Amino acid sequence: MRYDVLTLFPELIEAYIHCSIMKRAVNDNVIEVFAHNPREYTLDKHKKVDDTPYGGGAGMVLMPQPYVDCYEDIQKYDSCVTLMMTPQGEPFSDRMSDELSKYSQLIILCGHYEGFDERIRDIIKPKEVSVGDFVLTGGELPALCLIDSISRKINGTLGKIESAHDDSFSDGLLEYPQYTKPRNYRGYEVPEVLLNGNHKLISEYRQEQKIERTKQKRPDLYNKWSEKQK
Amino acid sequence: MRYDVLTLFPELIEAYIHCSIMKRAVNDNVIEVFAHNPREYTLDKHKKVDDTPYGGGAGMVLMPQPYVDCYEDIQKYDSCVTLMMTPQGEPFSDRMSDELSKYSQLIILCGHYEGFDERIRDIIKPKEVSVGDFVLTGGELPALCLIDSISRKINGTLGKIESAHDDSFSDGLLEYPQYTKPRNYRGYEVPEVLLNGNHKLISEYRQEQKIERTKQKRPDLYNKWSEKQK
Repeated sequence: MRYDVLTLFPELIEAYIHCSIMKRAVNDNVIEVFAHNPREYTLDKHKKVDDTPYGGGAGMVLMPQPYVDCYEDIQKYDSCVTLMMTPQGEPFSDRMSDELSKYSQLIILCGHYEGFDERIRDIIKPKEVSVGDFVLTGGELPALCLIDSISRKINGTLGKIESAHDDSFSDGLLEYPQYTKPRNYRGYEVPEVLLNGNHKLISEYRQEQKIERTKQKRPDLYNKWSEKQK
Repeated sequence: MRYDVLTLFPELIEAYIHCSIMKRAVNDNVIEVFAHNPREYTLDKHKKVDDTPYGGGAGMVLMPQPYVDCYEDIQKYDSCVTLMMTPQGEPFSDRMSDELSKYSQLIILCGHYEGFDERIRDIIKPKEVSVGDFVLTGGELPALCLIDSISRKINGTLGKIESAHDDSFSDGLLEYPQYTKPRNYRGYEVPEVLLNGNHKLISEYRQEQKIERTKQKRPDLYNKWSEKQK
């Protein structure tokens, strides 16, 4: 998978990618991440990328020229989707992550300040994606959430591919509670059933816990799951 | 606002905070961000912070001792909330961001690998928060989303406080389309109404656009907003 991120702060993308599990995936050639700065494409003599909004209002709006030119300069694969990170987009989900992981290239546009000149949407026609109903100073964190979540789905990123299959949402339910050593910590015991080595009982206990937890913490997901069981 | 983040990858938190608008807020003493590594608190002789799950399964589970000891070592203000970033939590929202911005201190627990030993929840009793129905390699990106979104609400972070008031969600609707120079870009014109200087007409046009856009892109938000108008 190749990711091309358009951002005024390429160092934010690079700093995250060069740490932790993503770095390993880059080194193993499982993913490639390029950050492109539209500022390098501006034709403005003062190197500006933003200007005041027509019609008035606070803040600065991102000009179309640097973004569109930068976008057009990126080498594109046949199997490529262009995304725009914006609170107005379709909510990002585990299912969308699965779908996007099947492409060879994702181009991701990150906004900043008061957002994009509308004509950037008109011309590039990206799929708009949101990570939630809240506002950030820029699209870099949402873009990194996408890259991280999608890369986990690609064979070779995680140590064992099984790790991704047991996660929350993979079957529409939240994950079961996990316990590790010590067996007793400050008086809190690991549930007996996990210690007896009976895999059938353990599996039943975990499934019950998943259902109970989802019911309690996320009734919306529980109702969806429960509908499907009928 | 003081943020204390518990993470095995403090460099991920620091890298983001030392760039862009968050850096300015730190320099202006509007926010303080501390990253604490539970690994420095482990009593295990091999400096381990995780171990295999009781009952079997792939991946590693975060041990309770390093997290609980690290948590207890953090100086706490009277006005403090402890959050845990997990896909099982309450969805983070603009409204939650407003509420959390009123505290003096937020302690944020970031998970990794297969997640937390359940007893970390039992003992610390954090408020569990999610940024969406997807899974990441760790809680650092969600923690940074919180810090970024909440800090924007605090007076002094943004250049002009007005910038946060016009955002998507602040009135339950998505933002109106924005335009900046040039007036004509590749044949795409800025809408006439934004050029005539009639503030009443501009304001009406923008409100119509907000409603239309929300209806089209996020019918769920539109329905909620529309209910409130009755």
